[in-house]
Amino acid sequence: MKKLLLTAAALPVLSIAALTPSSAQIAKQQVERLRDAALKDDLAWDITEGLTTEVGPRMPGTEAEARGRTWAVARLKALGFQNVRVEPFDMPVWVRGAEKAEILSPFPQPLVITALGNSAATPANGITAEVIGFESVAELEAAPDADVRGKIVFVTHRMMPTTTGVGYGQFGAPRRQGPTIASRKGAVGIVVRSIGTDYHRNPHTGAQDFAPGVTPIPAGALTVPDSEQLERILKRGRPVTMRLTLTPRNTGVHQSGNVIAEIPGRDPSLGVVVAACHLDSWDLGTGAIDDASGCGITAAAAKRVGDAGKPLRTIRLVWFGAEEVGLVGAQAYRAKHRDEKHAVIAESDLGADRVWRFQSRVSPAAQPAVDRIAAALAPLGIVKGSNREASGSDISVLTAIGFPTFELTQDATRYFDYHHTPDDTLDKVDLDQLRQNVAAWTTMLAIAANEPVEFGPVPTAGTQ
Amino acid sequence: MKKLLLTAAALPVLSIAALTPSSAQIAKQQVERLRDAALKDDLAWDITEGLTTEVGPRMPGTEAEARGRTWAVARLKALGFQNVRVEPFDMPVWVRGAEKAEILSPFPQPLVITALGNSAATPANGITAEVIGFESVAELEAAPDADVRGKIVFVTHRMMPTTTGVGYGQFGAPRRQGPTIASRKGAVGIVVRSIGTDYHRNPHTGAQDFAPGVTPIPAGALTVPDSEQLERILKRGRPVTMRLTLTPRNTGVHQSGNVIAEIPGRDPSLGVVVAACHLDSWDLGTGAIDDASGCGITAAAAKRVGDAGKPLRTIRLVWFGAEEVGLVGAQAYRAKHRDEKHAVIAESDLGADRVWRFQSRVSPAAQPAVDRIAAALAPLGIVKGSNREASGSDISVLTAIGFPTFELTQDATRYFDYHHTPDDTLDKVDLDQLRQNVAAWTTMLAIAANEPVEFGPVPTAGTQ
Repeated sequence: MKKLLLTAAALPVLSIAALTPSSAQIAKQQVERLRDAALKDDLAWDITEGLTTEVGPRMPGTEAEARGRTWAVARLKALGFQNVRVEPFDMPVWVRGAEKAEILSPFPQPLVITALGNSAATPANGITAEVIGFESVAELEAAPDADVRGKIVFVTHRMMPTTTGVGYGQFGAPRRQGPTIASRKGAVGIVVRSIGTDYHRNPHTGAQDFAPGVTPIPAGALTVPDSEQLERILKRGRPVTMRLTLTPRNTGVHQSGNVIAEIPGRDPSLGVVVAACHLDSWDLGTGAIDDASGCGITAAAAKRVGDAGKPLRTIRLVWFGAEEVGLVGAQAYRAKHRDEKHAVIAESDLGADRVWRFQSRVSPAAQPAVDRIAAALAPLGIVKGSNREASGSDISVLTAIGFPTFELTQDATRYFDYHHTPDDTLDKVDLDQLRQNVAAWTTMLAIAANEPVEFGPVPTAGTQ
Repeated sequence: MKKLLLTAAALPVLSIAALTPSSAQIAKQQVERLRDAALKDDLAWDITEGLTTEVGPRMPGTEAEARGRTWAVARLKALGFQNVRVEPFDMPVWVRGAEKAEILSPFPQPLVITALGNSAATPANGITAEVIGFESVAELEAAPDADVRGKIVFVTHRMMPTTTGVGYGQFGAPRRQGPTIASRKGAVGIVVRSIGTDYHRNPHTGAQDFAPGVTPIPAGALTVPDSEQLERILKRGRPVTMRLTLTPRNTGVHQSGNVIAEIPGRDPSLGVVVAACHLDSWDLGTGAIDDASGCGITAAAAKRVGDAGKPLRTIRLVWFGAEEVGLVGAQAYRAKHRDEKHAVIAESDLGADRVWRFQSRVSPAAQPAVDRIAAALAPLGIVKGSNREASGSDISVLTAIGFPTFELTQDATRYFDYHHTPDDTLDKVDLDQLRQNVAAWTTMLAIAANEPVEFGPVPTAGTQ
């Protein structure tokens, strides 16, 4: 069987063999019809537009995120999904307050800033201190504590765009590690250059956690233009005094939740195929590309596959809650569902620009099915990646415990221009690219949900 | 003489005739040398960088603008300009306060807004009213007063980019006329779509004046993404309630001033050549392209011409104050200098992108000199425009009373992406294009200041 499938996948796209599927395969022609029809999809846009317009920002654990869940449940039910439900969980909630930074001397002027997640608060009228600047987290780490004590630390580090978004990991150090290091060295506050690739005065917020035992200090992100302005001011060599006002607060434990909806399959024993996104967003924008579009893409694709006939496997949409503040919803999902059979999982959470790569982390024995998906994706301009790495934001906690995983990698080149900023709004979504995403997901789900191939077990890292 | 000059200008660039100037012409070769050297200019950048970094925003009539004048006087003196001075004037000052807009129902969410110049203030906790939307000022004008009374008016109108920036006049109506019309109809406030061509959440502020006898009301500009969001919300057809908080205030009459610096010429009787820009800026950005770059370009060009030898005519830099709130400095200059002989005037105030056109409004008898300037500009990619229109922001009040005028038209395609927003920062200045500006101005000033041709009188409009 394996050999037969491999042969079929290796044939040219319109071969007779491909048009004569075995009973265990969905007809190649049907997949192609579904794929091509999805290039005219309107539903992904409607969901993205609806969620961002009728709910707006959806900060984890707030009433805005709760309105998002209500909206999602109603919309998914109206679309005909089954078993639509919220799986609630509790979480500590942090919310933004006043945000202001200004240079008092030598060149008085305001700077645009936003608080990083879990930032401590300043007094209402701010703190005033001298600024000490560093080119990297490593340079901050190497500085004598005495130089840093009592000061406001500034860490700048230019981030470049990458197609995969991989730079986010490395370039994010000032935001993720900077506050903890600065606090340990006795700084009274820290401002970092936004982890972003744009030149607009919209700061990039994002999660950071103070390490255990470290005293939280006020921590903010300056916009890229403001960071370069501060660099220029510091280069004049005169002492620079900043007043920093950030008044976020912890509001205690509140409820969040994951929204789940299904298209029940014919054979529950084969496990569910998860198509994920996250429902929450940072508060500064309306969370259009992060991640309303991911919810729109996956729901539209799943509906297309379901509308073509009851699938073999159950397709499960998971709209995770509280992704932005530490994959809280994903952890709740893992705790509840880790022993349930999952055929394969995937997530859309890298914007709304086109998919350019399909990669996997599944059993080598499933390669023929992977190849067949890859062949069907090729006309969309999608290349096949490796079987070594595949993941997604929320689902990374499931990939980590061995769940078979697919990844439809989006073009992230402009993603970090808008990511976590006020600029993450509907106008950043390009309809043609959004539709290409729906076509890619439709293709992948149509095959994954309609064939009995086992995608697990996943080999241990490094053995592939 | 006229005939001879015309012939020379019509010859190919490197003709022998052109290399043999009459005694009344600056050598073509020298102009070309000055022009080409200016393509490596650093001074325009240094001035732009210095003013935006060391002073920052320069709101008319404030201490920040005063710091700008102090900076300018010191810098221009250090560069060797003569007769460097401030010509002060008094003006009423309006400053920004708190700014907040939020939809309360049916879809609660914040919107990004900024106050328009001369906006009235709301109470500290804002005003709450239903929103009524209009697609244009004409539609607002046509609406029954009863529909508008007690409401917050919203006027949206998509602006498209133009090479000349000409759309700013027409598309600016919601900002300029909207508040007065809305107030007359009994609206309690008005929010307009930003007069801008970008899709970022940076609002475009700008001047507007309530007509005499009209009660000022709170008036703000939403960003383009926020305006489109409000349009979508209104299209749902349910009543939309907004809370609008704008607390600007009038701080009374304060001093502003024009900064003037000269390169004295050999023959004062021939009148001054004015190279203008404006020193003030809106408060949201650092006024890099509006208009620190204009000051950098004109000063760098003037210095290059002066360094080549004492010019025939005096070159006068005028860094106008309080341009943004109604050409206040220009009016003060006109009152003081209108009877002084001005050979020709020009201003750089449309950003820092390349010059693509040279046009004039001078005596037809001066056409040979105009043609010679145009020929020297051609290698910079600059085309010759008409002799019917030429102007600039501040100098328009002088053009209006018949002063001969040159215009080096900049490419305004992306100017209104940043204009009057927080995004008007140094990073928007492209060094290569800035240098091309300096080369164009150097060329124009070298010829205009070194030849005794009379550029006036300017014929009445329509006769050319």
